[in-house]
Amino acid sequence: MTEMSKLTAADIASRLTALDDWTLSDEGKLCREIKFKDFTHAFSFMTGVALIADKMNHHPDWFNSYSTLKIALSSHDVSGLSEQDFILAKAIDELLLGWRLEA
Amino acid sequence: MTEMSKLTAADIASRLTALDDWTLSDEGKLCREIKFKDFTHAFSFMTGVALIADKMNHHPDWFNSYSTLKIALSSHDVSGLSEQDFILAKAIDELLLGWRLEA
Amino acid sequence: MTEMSKLTAADIASRLTALDDWTLSDEGKLCREIKFKDFTHAFSFMTGVALIADKMNHHPDWFNSYSTLKIALSSHDVSGLSEQDFILAKAIDELLLGWRLEA
Amino acid sequence: MTEMSKLTAADIASRLTALDDWTLSDEGKLCREIKFKDFTHAFSFMTGVALIADKMNHHPDWFNSYSTLKIALSSHDVSGLSEQDFILAKAIDELLLGWRLEA
Repeated sequence: MTEMSKLTAADIASRLTALDDWTLSDEGKLCREIKFKDFTHAFSFMTGVALIADKMNHHPDWFNSYSTLKIALSSHDVSGLSEQDFILAKAIDELLLGWRLEA
Repeated sequence: MTEMSKLTAADIASRLTALDDWTLSDEGKLCREIKFKDFTHAFSFMTGVALIADKMNHHPDWFNSYSTLKIALSSHDVSGLSEQDFILAKAIDELLLGWRLEA
Repeated sequence: MTEMSKLTAADIASRLTALDDWTLSDEGKLCREIKFKDFTHAFSFMTGVALIADKMNHHPDWFNSYSTLKIALSSHDVSGLSEQDFILAKAIDELLLGWRLEA
Repeated sequence: MTEMSKLTAADIASRLTALDDWTLSDEGKLCREIKFKDFTHAFSFMTGVALIADKMNHHPDWFNSYSTLKIALSSHDVSGLSEQDFILAKAIDELLLGWRLEA
């Protein structure tokens, strides 16, 4: 199975158990919402994610409003979720370690 | 009138005539959608907007998906649009004109 | 004394005692070198500093090579150091709390 | 020849003729200095370069002071210049041409 194969519902359920802060949206996207201390922290974090995502050539759909960041991952090429989405989700979680969150 | 006064519908209509690429959403937000060449151009533009917005202490609601950027401006403090939204919209348009080098 | 007054050598020596990781260069600039985990962490940190510095309208001279960042602060307007340099240095130190450094 | 082979002086001279705005430093680095309109333009451009460079896994040595950006490219692995430096230089020149929107 290549990384861009579409994951089955069972695959997804299994992988989700390792990602505490992510949920599946009604549209089947892998989602996480993060509240940072302020805009400076939110946007500098986005810059880190941008570098990681662009290197993977796998980009998030994301929404930012001041200190709030909402991320939605999916794989357009397979009309669903692929291994790439879970790799990116883990990389985002790892980058977030140590970032100061909202008090 | 301070910059953070709520603009009337007439004020907004008048100011919109000077902003060709912006529309009012159903929720009364000042919106523009931009399609860039690729993610590199989209995100580096977002960095420029982030610097301008943070300096004004007036931040956009924005959504990015690869080369597409959707911006929605409003003033939470007045539950509507203020002069600040139009100042930020103009600054975004100006930034978009191009990478200007020192004259 | 305004924030852009030139600090005396005694003022500087006194303020330096509160900044463990900063040194005075031979040219009298306030300097700190930081080694990050990788380029992603270095550049996302730079983005945070860029937002803070631009908001203060007081910008660093800085050099980056992969995971290394060298910052040199000074106040061109007074041909030396001003209170602004120490305010920015403290803000940089505060932002750095929690960023993962080189192992 | 792989992209990370060290280029000969003749190779470098030949490639330099296609890069009007780049010079060789005394240390043999490929250098360009750019003056932007202001810090916003300089730093958002740096963000674009950061994305491109990280994707190539080939990072610049660079210095920024307000609206000035000095870039020095070299290949540590070969103690000189490689094809990668010229690829990155061309990508930087291309990015600088302007904010290109989707055609």
